[in-house]
Amino acid sequence: MKVKRSNRVVDMTRYLLERPRTLISLKFFAQRYDSAKSSISEDLGILKQTFQERGTGILETIPGATGGVRFIPYILREEAQEFIDSIVDEVNDESRLLPGGYVYLSDLLSRPDILRQVGRLIATQYLNQDVNVVMTVATKGIPIAQSVANYLNVPFVIVRNDSHITEGSTVSVNYVSGSSKRIEKMELSRRSLQQGARVLVVDDFMKGGGTLNGMASLIKEFDATLIGMTVFAEGEFSGDRLVKQYTSLIKVNAVNPNDQTIEAQPGNYLSTVFGTEMGNK
Amino acid sequence: MKVKRSNRVVDMTRYLLERPRTLISLKFFAQRYDSAKSSISEDLGILKQTFQERGTGILETIPGATGGVRFIPYILREEAQEFIDSIVDEVNDESRLLPGGYVYLSDLLSRPDILRQVGRLIATQYLNQDVNVVMTVATKGIPIAQSVANYLNVPFVIVRNDSHITEGSTVSVNYVSGSSKRIEKMELSRRSLQQGARVLVVDDFMKGGGTLNGMASLIKEFDATLIGMTVFAEGEFSGDRLVKQYTSLIKVNAVNPNDQTIEAQPGNYLSTVFGTEMGNK
Repeated sequence: MKVKRSNRVVDMTRYLLERPRTLISLKFFAQRYDSAKSSISEDLGILKQTFQERGTGILETIPGATGGVRFIPYILREEAQEFIDSIVDEVNDESRLLPGGYVYLSDLLSRPDILRQVGRLIATQYLNQDVNVVMTVATKGIPIAQSVANYLNVPFVIVRNDSHITEGSTVSVNYVSGSSKRIEKMELSRRSLQQGARVLVVDDFMKGGGTLNGMASLIKEFDATLIGMTVFAEGEFSGDRLVKQYTSLIKVNAVNPNDQTIEAQPGNYLSTVFGTEMGNK
Repeated sequence: MKVKRSNRVVDMTRYLLERPRTLISLKFFAQRYDSAKSSISEDLGILKQTFQERGTGILETIPGATGGVRFIPYILREEAQEFIDSIVDEVNDESRLLPGGYVYLSDLLSRPDILRQVGRLIATQYLNQDVNVVMTVATKGIPIAQSVANYLNVPFVIVRNDSHITEGSTVSVNYVSGSSKRIEKMELSRRSLQQGARVLVVDDFMKGGGTLNGMASLIKEFDATLIGMTVFAEGEFSGDRLVKQYTSLIKVNAVNPNDQTIEAQPGNYLSTVFGTEMGNK
């Protein structure tokens, strides 16, 4: 039975949002709604316009017999900035201070509304890059990796510090923890990463960059390619970081826990992704 | 500027899908689209009808001054069964067999398309229950917890076997691993769970039920309430399980790894959630 336009566009919106970056043919929609391809084309024009006006994402149309339509989610600078500012506000709270200058962030990284936006922000950064897989290290990077993977519609892999029987054979590397200078080990299931894969690395927190650097070595071990590294928060670090190129959503300076002061501010995300008027990074 | 109906319903669909179980007032939409409340009401009728026809979820309307509309995602039996059957097919693959009768499942639980459906299925099971928080244990339960939490729009908490400095003070319990009979310890950050919280427990795999049982003890320790336990897969186990009431999406019988045979089948999810003609579980 022929489906009406208003019902079609509701269902198409849902269908495309649930399948980011997936090419859907016009024929598929035409059959699904028992409607002419020309009507479907008009519907998609409405979606495209609305998504653009509301900053939801791009609706990319690929012409030809093998063509179709693909939804690519993004976030606009203004919304990204608003979100980062709201996170900075939440983190600027002395009750988050933990012994040793650490900061409690687990509550933020377990809220679906926050994780969704973090995923959208990071996916926007790599909008025009070909990413096959998102990598992170257990435990607290996982929710971020999953959310980014959701928006890029690619799988994610979890590097672990302990090997686990249900992972099968693994590849491991030793790495130097940037903050403690200790030698540690991380490993990844051999099956989980293909040779030549294009890998985006994400994590919750970076201090000296040792963990990120370890993941970079692991990517080399698998003959895969590192596309970029983005963390939710970077902490204060005196000395040389082991990783030079990274992006952070926020920056946390936990000044001397004896003073019980904490100071968070936006990281380099906005200038890296959207640039600045002054052109500085 | 007044927004046209077709554009309104596209944006409303997106807005509501991104905020499951959140009450949105008609006034909010009326202002957002510079349209009369009566038009918004009609729009919502279109969404409601489409969501119902396509098995997307319920659009609940709450009348009155404090009322509005709330989207509650669910999955219909037919789609749930199709999904479970497709997972069973994927798991029935001898190359997944690991030493000790374990099964490699990590690739499935790192694919966004699979995790989305797992989340929808488990959220549907607890559709009419008041759940405040989803709990799981690190590492492989996390993606499931996050996806369920996303559909229920509640936070999730991660129980760990090792304490970590960035978690602050923790509460720990000892538990007996159901399969190895060893005493282990698990802990949860004190700040992450409120007294009286209504907790849904999820995990990737269950054998003897020791880990699930440990989480049940931890929930008691926090004076919180256990609402239910659902796992992605249950394995074969000879002997008494430590947990009697649980739901599983699939069942994996890894018969003697020497034979190199694996046998997966649907778990008790469908009969638990949708019932059966014969009324058996």
